[in-house]
Amino acid sequence: MSAAAVEPRFRRVALIGKLHSPEVEASMHEMRGFLASRGCEIVSGSAKAADLAIVIGGDGTMLVAARELVRQRVPLIGVNQGRVGFMTDIGREDMLAGIGAVLDGQYALEERTLLDAEIRRGGKTTVKTLALNEAVVGKGAQGRLIEFELSIDGEFVYKLRGDGVIVATPTGSTAYALSAQGPILHPAVPALALVPLNPHTLSARPVSVSDTSVIEIALVGALDAKAHFDGFLSHDMEEGDRLVLRRSADTVRFVHPPGYRYFATLREKLRWSEILEKTREPG
Amino acid sequence: MSAAAVEPRFRRVALIGKLHSPEVEASMHEMRGFLASRGCEIVSGSAKAADLAIVIGGDGTMLVAARELVRQRVPLIGVNQGRVGFMTDIGREDMLAGIGAVLDGQYALEERTLLDAEIRRGGKTTVKTLALNEAVVGKGAQGRLIEFELSIDGEFVYKLRGDGVIVATPTGSTAYALSAQGPILHPAVPALALVPLNPHTLSARPVSVSDTSVIEIALVGALDAKAHFDGFLSHDMEEGDRLVLRRSADTVRFVHPPGYRYFATLREKLRWSEILEKTREPG
Amino acid sequence: MSAAAVEPRFRRVALIGKLHSPEVEASMHEMRGFLASRGCEIVSGSAKAADLAIVIGGDGTMLVAARELVRQRVPLIGVNQGRVGFMTDIGREDMLAGIGAVLDGQYALEERTLLDAEIRRGGKTTVKTLALNEAVVGKGAQGRLIEFELSIDGEFVYKLRGDGVIVATPTGSTAYALSAQGPILHPAVPALALVPLNPHTLSARPVSVSDTSVIEIALVGALDAKAHFDGFLSHDMEEGDRLVLRRSADTVRFVHPPGYRYFATLREKLRWSEILEKTREPG
Amino acid sequence: MSAAAVEPRFRRVALIGKLHSPEVEASMHEMRGFLASRGCEIVSGSAKAADLAIVIGGDGTMLVAARELVRQRVPLIGVNQGRVGFMTDIGREDMLAGIGAVLDGQYALEERTLLDAEIRRGGKTTVKTLALNEAVVGKGAQGRLIEFELSIDGEFVYKLRGDGVIVATPTGSTAYALSAQGPILHPAVPALALVPLNPHTLSARPVSVSDTSVIEIALVGALDAKAHFDGFLSHDMEEGDRLVLRRSADTVRFVHPPGYRYFATLREKLRWSEILEKTREPG
Repeated sequence: MSAAAVEPRFRRVALIGKLHSPEVEASMHEMRGFLASRGCEIVSGSAKAADLAIVIGGDGTMLVAARELVRQRVPLIGVNQGRVGFMTDIGREDMLAGIGAVLDGQYALEERTLLDAEIRRGGKTTVKTLALNEAVVGKGAQGRLIEFELSIDGEFVYKLRGDGVIVATPTGSTAYALSAQGPILHPAVPALALVPLNPHTLSARPVSVSDTSVIEIALVGALDAKAHFDGFLSHDMEEGDRLVLRRSADTVRFVHPPGYRYFATLREKLRWSEILEKTREPG
Repeated sequence: MSAAAVEPRFRRVALIGKLHSPEVEASMHEMRGFLASRGCEIVSGSAKAADLAIVIGGDGTMLVAARELVRQRVPLIGVNQGRVGFMTDIGREDMLAGIGAVLDGQYALEERTLLDAEIRRGGKTTVKTLALNEAVVGKGAQGRLIEFELSIDGEFVYKLRGDGVIVATPTGSTAYALSAQGPILHPAVPALALVPLNPHTLSARPVSVSDTSVIEIALVGALDAKAHFDGFLSHDMEEGDRLVLRRSADTVRFVHPPGYRYFATLREKLRWSEILEKTREPG
Repeated sequence: MSAAAVEPRFRRVALIGKLHSPEVEASMHEMRGFLASRGCEIVSGSAKAADLAIVIGGDGTMLVAARELVRQRVPLIGVNQGRVGFMTDIGREDMLAGIGAVLDGQYALEERTLLDAEIRRGGKTTVKTLALNEAVVGKGAQGRLIEFELSIDGEFVYKLRGDGVIVATPTGSTAYALSAQGPILHPAVPALALVPLNPHTLSARPVSVSDTSVIEIALVGALDAKAHFDGFLSHDMEEGDRLVLRRSADTVRFVHPPGYRYFATLREKLRWSEILEKTREPG
Repeated sequence: MSAAAVEPRFRRVALIGKLHSPEVEASMHEMRGFLASRGCEIVSGSAKAADLAIVIGGDGTMLVAARELVRQRVPLIGVNQGRVGFMTDIGREDMLAGIGAVLDGQYALEERTLLDAEIRRGGKTTVKTLALNEAVVGKGAQGRLIEFELSIDGEFVYKLRGDGVIVATPTGSTAYALSAQGPILHPAVPALALVPLNPHTLSARPVSVSDTSVIEIALVGALDAKAHFDGFLSHDMEEGDRLVLRRSADTVRFVHPPGYRYFATLREKLRWSEILEKTREPG
């Protein structure tokens, strides 16, 4: 196979990996050689100028890279170093074959929903950011419960007290929201999951709403509260602040090699393949 | 207001109510007089020939009527005699005003997804039916757990042992599936919820998938098992039988009077308006 | 070590194993030789006359054997053929060492709570049985929900509609009750767990009560209902029937070899040792 | 009835109520008059010197008072101003009758388990406090997940990553732990509930252990973490810190008027009396 066979869409490739990891460094070195042999240009400056970003590491590294590159619509493909990730679905040992197939033009492009998030105080927007996995309004450092009102497209949904609430995309439905008993949303479902965090009423339940909804969470009572985005951006919120979420015009673009299966990844990550032996009945 | 003002779509009206209930009878009597005064023809034979079916009673009565009338595409509107229902959203005391508004042409028409269901044994279809709320594959009379494989569009999803599995529409997501910790799906979300029933593995979780999916549940191990549809049709299933579910070309058509709000009904039914007082912190 | 060293308590040993399994047969053959070499008498008639019952198989086999032998207070020890069981905690490969240690007098004896169960109809007791894992009042073959009232020591606790309710011992708290979101009760906690099955109200929750409580479940509404005990005894229940449960004067007596650890078994069985990799934060 | 009839145990009474509430002030004024008419001495200095503390307010006020008075073994009785509380079980309208009965010697004394808590850093104890409801190790202000190991009586139980873990007494099992899906423990059950907070593994479950257990939670990974006690005391924790919990030699002593019923309070607080109407079946 000659370098001429490289999918023209992916000529300029960025390589992204966690620093200070010898394993990742070794993989990146090997990948650089492979990309050169395929005639790709390896983008050395900002990955924002690349046609494709290859991320080597875990889902966390992928999440940071995706947030970084989404506005430039750079597609990402993930190689994991250990266990398969939800987003880094190519195993280290299949790395060259997987990336090679993609460069040959054999791949599936999947677009994932993203949220544009704003915090509004008085008439002003104090924070503007995005969320690929989830946005959270939660209690702050003092650990006191917060009280908030959630509305959708201007219609009041509920007022709750508790540790907070998560608004998760399908991508995020297998991350933090899942720990909080949220439902898994297949990426093809155009919905967002609203998942209360340790709500102070027994009747609260997760609700999935259309991803065309504008979701607003108003903080009505709190000594201190925080908004979090994708687990690592944190902003103080005060009583009266509102977090407004809507689907972004942009999408995150994941590239998958041939053979990618959503449910196979899910089974692997959630260990569904391992079913407890029966103890309920005579054996 | 003259009879001429009646929405032409709703000239022939069927009245459906639970028998042997004096309250329902009284409401139906009053409704008959009102419809006559508005110049509607009250269909006395099969409701299948009507332009509109007014159901007086609870969600259960509505469910039966909707199953009966869906193939003829007769729209339904529900009047509850007591507490508000998810489907019978007009209160008894607002009955004439609500139905009057609808006859005046002031209403919202909402289409709800329906499942076509088949049980296949060997190469043959042994049962063909539909499900508005949910289809269930569950254990039978002996109470022994069953083992099944679930696949979507031919892709294997999981093999589980437990009491069974529910496949719920958004309409059914607030019925039996909710008791089994399933997620609430807003009717505008084009998805189905797959909810395991007391699964014999701790990692099983509800999953929502696109309602364009073809869902197949194959019974791989069971002494006795049953399929249920909307809680009151029950069919025996044997090892090797497959339940195949797909979105129906038909939809159930609910008519709502002005002012109907999905989340208001949800709050009312799930008692979200009543939040426990705080006990976690000094008062 | 000579045969004279055998713990006098365990001279007469019964061997119990699932039939028709070549692996179990092989283990039993090996065990018979070992016991003979240690000078034990192998009880060939009813195991009820033994000083010790060695069960080879899974938790299901152990459950049947324990129910059979509890009234004669025969201690049981379990050898699993595959994965470790909650009750069969000696691995096949450690079988001779484990049983040998026990015969040497190195063992821990653990008593597990058992429930005496009665179904009462009118003034009469129609069924008398016992439950080591759990007693269940559940829906019958038609799959319709049931309605019941639960009281403790004559004090009304709740009236529920749903698929039923489980009353589990600590031993049973890791079996069916765990599938129904019940709490794990360490065997040293003198409590019973009341776990509703898919209750028709969002506020129902599992409750643990003292194991000295007399628990009564009265069936107040049901087309058909069943009582189940330890997953394989099933009795019809009618409206008005009451299931009465109280701690038995007998206990099941498990013998453990040196080194047995409850939490190690729990970790192994529930796969707590396998923690998902982090996906919530940048990696 | 003369003042001479006052139960000698309760001659010196302290009155405790939330400040700045006109309703509480009015109740306290009325109570002062009543106590004077019954010949009680109203303790004006520290409530620690009283024979009985009457708390007027909600469970939060009661919690603060109980923490304050537990070491002096002062019994407490609670009057709620609005909805019944788990701890403030006398309604405002029954206040004089309830307290009167208690002063007449008609009452039940209930002792509730309390935890002694220590945070250890290196070889030193940095914090010593108590917990009536619960002790929590949780994430700090930055909202990052924490990793901890939990052991019981020196036996390793599990290592988890997540938002934290709650150790709740039976009293606390209906407070924060209930929001986190913990089991309700009847006060007569001598157990503690270990409830993970949004754990990062699907197989984590609440576990109840004997209240004679020494529970140790070691923080093995955290950017910032906090320990909380009864929802309002918060201490920083660092990697390597250990929270050690054991049942206190002291107990909180609640006084109940005649007719107090635990399950009646539970039904009232958790709204178990209100069962959703049936929507699963034809009505």
